[in-house]
Amino acid sequence: MPIKVGIVGATGYTGGELIRFLMHHPGAEVVHLMRLTSEAELALEQVHPHLRKLSQLKCVPMNEETLARDVDVVFLAVPHGAAMNIAPKLLEAGVRVIDLSADFRLKDASEFEVWYHTKHKSSHLLKEAVYGLPEVHREEIRSAKLVANPGCYPISAIIALMPLLKMGIAHSKHILIDSKSGVSGAGRSKLSVDYHYPEMFGDFKPYGIASHRHTPEIEQELSLIAGEKISVTFTPHLLPVSRGILTTAYVELEDKVGAEELYEAYVRAYSNEPFVRVLPMGVAPRLKSVVGSNFCDVNIFVDERTNCAIAVSAIDNLAKGASSNAIQNMNIMFGLDECCGLLLPAISP
Amino acid sequence: MPIKVGIVGATGYTGGELIRFLMHHPGAEVVHLMRLTSEAELALEQVHPHLRKLSQLKCVPMNEETLARDVDVVFLAVPHGAAMNIAPKLLEAGVRVIDLSADFRLKDASEFEVWYHTKHKSSHLLKEAVYGLPEVHREEIRSAKLVANPGCYPISAIIALMPLLKMGIAHSKHILIDSKSGVSGAGRSKLSVDYHYPEMFGDFKPYGIASHRHTPEIEQELSLIAGEKISVTFTPHLLPVSRGILTTAYVELEDKVGAEELYEAYVRAYSNEPFVRVLPMGVAPRLKSVVGSNFCDVNIFVDERTNCAIAVSAIDNLAKGASSNAIQNMNIMFGLDECCGLLLPAISP
Amino acid sequence: MPIKVGIVGATGYTGGELIRFLMHHPGAEVVHLMRLTSEAELALEQVHPHLRKLSQLKCVPMNEETLARDVDVVFLAVPHGAAMNIAPKLLEAGVRVIDLSADFRLKDASEFEVWYHTKHKSSHLLKEAVYGLPEVHREEIRSAKLVANPGCYPISAIIALMPLLKMGIAHSKHILIDSKSGVSGAGRSKLSVDYHYPEMFGDFKPYGIASHRHTPEIEQELSLIAGEKISVTFTPHLLPVSRGILTTAYVELEDKVGAEELYEAYVRAYSNEPFVRVLPMGVAPRLKSVVGSNFCDVNIFVDERTNCAIAVSAIDNLAKGASSNAIQNMNIMFGLDECCGLLLPAISP
Amino acid sequence: MPIKVGIVGATGYTGGELIRFLMHHPGAEVVHLMRLTSEAELALEQVHPHLRKLSQLKCVPMNEETLARDVDVVFLAVPHGAAMNIAPKLLEAGVRVIDLSADFRLKDASEFEVWYHTKHKSSHLLKEAVYGLPEVHREEIRSAKLVANPGCYPISAIIALMPLLKMGIAHSKHILIDSKSGVSGAGRSKLSVDYHYPEMFGDFKPYGIASHRHTPEIEQELSLIAGEKISVTFTPHLLPVSRGILTTAYVELEDKVGAEELYEAYVRAYSNEPFVRVLPMGVAPRLKSVVGSNFCDVNIFVDERTNCAIAVSAIDNLAKGASSNAIQNMNIMFGLDECCGLLLPAISP
Repeated sequence: MPIKVGIVGATGYTGGELIRFLMHHPGAEVVHLMRLTSEAELALEQVHPHLRKLSQLKCVPMNEETLARDVDVVFLAVPHGAAMNIAPKLLEAGVRVIDLSADFRLKDASEFEVWYHTKHKSSHLLKEAVYGLPEVHREEIRSAKLVANPGCYPISAIIALMPLLKMGIAHSKHILIDSKSGVSGAGRSKLSVDYHYPEMFGDFKPYGIASHRHTPEIEQELSLIAGEKISVTFTPHLLPVSRGILTTAYVELEDKVGAEELYEAYVRAYSNEPFVRVLPMGVAPRLKSVVGSNFCDVNIFVDERTNCAIAVSAIDNLAKGASSNAIQNMNIMFGLDECCGLLLPAISP
Repeated sequence: MPIKVGIVGATGYTGGELIRFLMHHPGAEVVHLMRLTSEAELALEQVHPHLRKLSQLKCVPMNEETLARDVDVVFLAVPHGAAMNIAPKLLEAGVRVIDLSADFRLKDASEFEVWYHTKHKSSHLLKEAVYGLPEVHREEIRSAKLVANPGCYPISAIIALMPLLKMGIAHSKHILIDSKSGVSGAGRSKLSVDYHYPEMFGDFKPYGIASHRHTPEIEQELSLIAGEKISVTFTPHLLPVSRGILTTAYVELEDKVGAEELYEAYVRAYSNEPFVRVLPMGVAPRLKSVVGSNFCDVNIFVDERTNCAIAVSAIDNLAKGASSNAIQNMNIMFGLDECCGLLLPAISP
Repeated sequence: MPIKVGIVGATGYTGGELIRFLMHHPGAEVVHLMRLTSEAELALEQVHPHLRKLSQLKCVPMNEETLARDVDVVFLAVPHGAAMNIAPKLLEAGVRVIDLSADFRLKDASEFEVWYHTKHKSSHLLKEAVYGLPEVHREEIRSAKLVANPGCYPISAIIALMPLLKMGIAHSKHILIDSKSGVSGAGRSKLSVDYHYPEMFGDFKPYGIASHRHTPEIEQELSLIAGEKISVTFTPHLLPVSRGILTTAYVELEDKVGAEELYEAYVRAYSNEPFVRVLPMGVAPRLKSVVGSNFCDVNIFVDERTNCAIAVSAIDNLAKGASSNAIQNMNIMFGLDECCGLLLPAISP
Repeated sequence: MPIKVGIVGATGYTGGELIRFLMHHPGAEVVHLMRLTSEAELALEQVHPHLRKLSQLKCVPMNEETLARDVDVVFLAVPHGAAMNIAPKLLEAGVRVIDLSADFRLKDASEFEVWYHTKHKSSHLLKEAVYGLPEVHREEIRSAKLVANPGCYPISAIIALMPLLKMGIAHSKHILIDSKSGVSGAGRSKLSVDYHYPEMFGDFKPYGIASHRHTPEIEQELSLIAGEKISVTFTPHLLPVSRGILTTAYVELEDKVGAEELYEAYVRAYSNEPFVRVLPMGVAPRLKSVVGSNFCDVNIFVDERTNCAIAVSAIDNLAKGASSNAIQNMNIMFGLDECCGLLLPAISP
């Protein structure tokens, strides 16, 4: 008996990717596609033309009763502020919830309110919500009812830095994270001249400097990993591509640490992770090797002249950075093989 | 004494290009930048950040009295339907008008109304309006008060086909025109998910098949050149670039015509044209050689197996396809050297 | 028992796509990856970094004896001129051959020699070779020992035009085919300044005008379909993307044919084809909906003003245009479900 | 009397840009275009098709005697290792030299040999060579005979950081510089699968981590500006565009420094610089505003949570990062208006 799945927010980019990955998942079946914003029913191919002829599902207005009745798990691919209203009823009805929005990521409701300028309406759930990064919280995810699927930038940053922080060799507790993302991170519905094709074509620029909302999320998780307060300066940039995040993070090292020693620690740390690929020593991650897949490619370098470590990771922001990572969480929550449905390779070239 | 220039619609892409080309024009001075849609005054760099530090002009709401008082010529870089309201008053005040919209291009007002679904409010001006393609109508442009600057696709198609049609060797009076344009042709203000960066990235598609508004304009001018009724099937496509149009046009030939003979006719036809470059025999036009410039690169090929001529042209849709061609018209109208201010090369690579 | 598969030419782009699609094919197992050009053995991820951690296969120098001993079918993803030397020995050993090169596509060896400037060394096999386009030759493919997988442009053109030609309504027996392809069609090993990133970025251009080698292949198959001699003028263009071909083909119609009637004929013609999607009436194919997949999206339009049909198709040149189409052939040859392993959706956005 | 100019290395991308900018320079005339590598004479348009019809110059094999006889200044747009052989003879003949290669940038010949793995054959000239960044060394440039035009990355980094370093508020003497460059920085002649269009399309990646040759150059100049030893960790990345460098640099601050105070210091520092544009507070530089021009857009941000300054700059790597900066040096050396020929705006969109 496959798991019954509902998707709320099926018309967006992460909704589309959830459908694409679940389409051939042997242990799960999508039974409802819903959307928040409209009464009209749409055929799947009206919303996602690339999925034409691959499914007979329709996308209908959200109905929590239907979900409560029919499904085992709901993916909420909705804007922040919406999930906090939907999740409680589903959880009460015994449906597990994997929320792809920001609503349940920060453990501290007041921090949420500072960065998101929104009162948190379900702060009582923050304690039980599990931060859904399998590489960090796999055991808690197994028994979670509510998973907060991480932000795309935090996933790239945390996987890049975790082994180093666990070693306790960071001299500076202030880490610099320079990330570059494709424009699909802005979603599909927020039209803006900033994302108008002629404007971004051939362009590249930072945005949200010293103010991006993923900052406290990165700090929360890195501090947890390091066992001490870590602060970050996080600078996202917009790449003139559709998909992919590459993160370059800089850590001043405590003592001279050899590049090989550090590299070996990364290899060991991720040797059992099915979706983290530590590249051969000296080989830099690149977007093309991960776009379309659930893989995170990572590597660690040391600038021995300055005793500074440079951690680099690459993910697909819509896949490992959102939808396929959420499915990885589902696989863990329901005791399935963690790789189920997720071994689609990147498309290259 | 330089010519005094006003630009209405200065905030759009063609407005920006008018400013860029006129900036160093030795015989013209931009004195007013105006826009239709708002009361707010904007510094030039708020509208066109790439022009920061290059001019002190401000962009202000349109004021026809100011224009009538201060300028010799107005460029109307406005949506179709607007110019027909503005032009009459300016002309009455003795100001020359170069209209970059579609309002005065079609000689037959009823044809305009069929294709643009708009009543023509200044059809009395259609007779005196000159179709502003110097390569075809240079002499009439000299004395024109009102110039209808052609559409971008028509410019590329007409220059590609003119020498062949003048030779009278087209067997078919039905010509197939397959054009490909960068997305800037859609303008800056019409935000649409179709032009959202993630959607167009890596994409390519036709649009407006058998129904694009530039069709009657192309037919009008090609028929004039050929001296008989020419019909066209015109298919525009959207390229995943910002700027540039490449047109490939197909003409069945009357009798066997040698490729060299036809090529020589093109060389002769354009030998005195400052901005048409007939490439060496066998060399195909490409966007990169013209983007940013007023040049139109053109070449003619013959498929001798099938006795079919293939005419290819490349222009920058915002430059020779709009703004710099309009300035070329201005130079002719005011008796200046036709190349004045227009010899900026394309930027490559 | 899965089919045992060998791939010769595994280091190129089509080789990589064969591996990607076969990776999760339930009825086939890749047992040998080989390449023509070198003695060195390479791990798969050295050649195709995006496939790291997904397979333990190595890429070794070609050895026909090994293939003859171990595999049921060999895909030849090699340059033209090479397959004609390899295929005979494999066929003699009872191995079926699916050749992705041009060597066995043209039925007439002299035509091959004219267009490819190479003496055909295995012309005795041309008669038994089956042109591997399932939409046209499915029945012959079932029993084929040697399949000539079609060229990417011909696949896009033939699928676009077949229903119309079968209706016998083409007035002109001369068809104009204007195709646009991503740069991956040039392969991975032919480095040239033409494909150097800064040169193609933002560029677009035709090439091989009136002389491209896919021309006789298109004519051979269209003539077969039409039951009379069809000639084509074929113009390929290079798009600044990696993958995808969009073809726009123009046919003058015999008599007035209604757009709806023609559209319905397309719907009927392809109603049982698993990988051809006739889009809703009026909706144009686009690259994004097919890139990464085995689908061909197609539609037919009529310019009723000029009585000209415009057929449009979109495929991924490396997938339906090469590798996944070859696997579709394999599925048919071995009596498997034709869709086996091939229902991967396109990646969008 | 215009200055007579010779260009050696006219076939490359920086050679092409020198020609483009000098084409309309009112005080200079290009009289010789030469190249190192071949005996064949080429018309300019064979080498730079976008410059067709704009000049009658030919590109001929290098001849130092001709240069010594005919020109006042030579631009060397050659690979490193070549200029050190050519410059001495020209200087002896009284010709001024502006070298766009790396040969004369590092003051310490042994440092050159460590990073470039090449013996320096003209180390006696290092002392008199002036590092050609007008914003730092304008006075020395005035009287220089030999100018070492800086590397593209150093120009972007130095302009981004200079005002801050002059203020003496950097707590850390170790600065992190994360730069992103278009592929044209790799030049035109070094074909590599890394720069093959299908590989870079949609890709992004770091390269030369902790080992890029521009590192010692950046350290030399930043140390000079700061008046103390500054070390940098420099990470370049390859953007999937042709042109442009955006640099994001991170400096830990000594004491709390207000964002406004720091911003005002930048405004003051660059108030008289014709080609540095400090954007309005809070507005981030972007490539599109500078590509094609000699401008450097810059801004400074403070992450007040972590007391870290983020300096951002954008240049065109081929223009302000190479050719147009070299012409700015020429203008200074010959007492011309520094802006002569250099006020071409960026092309946008």
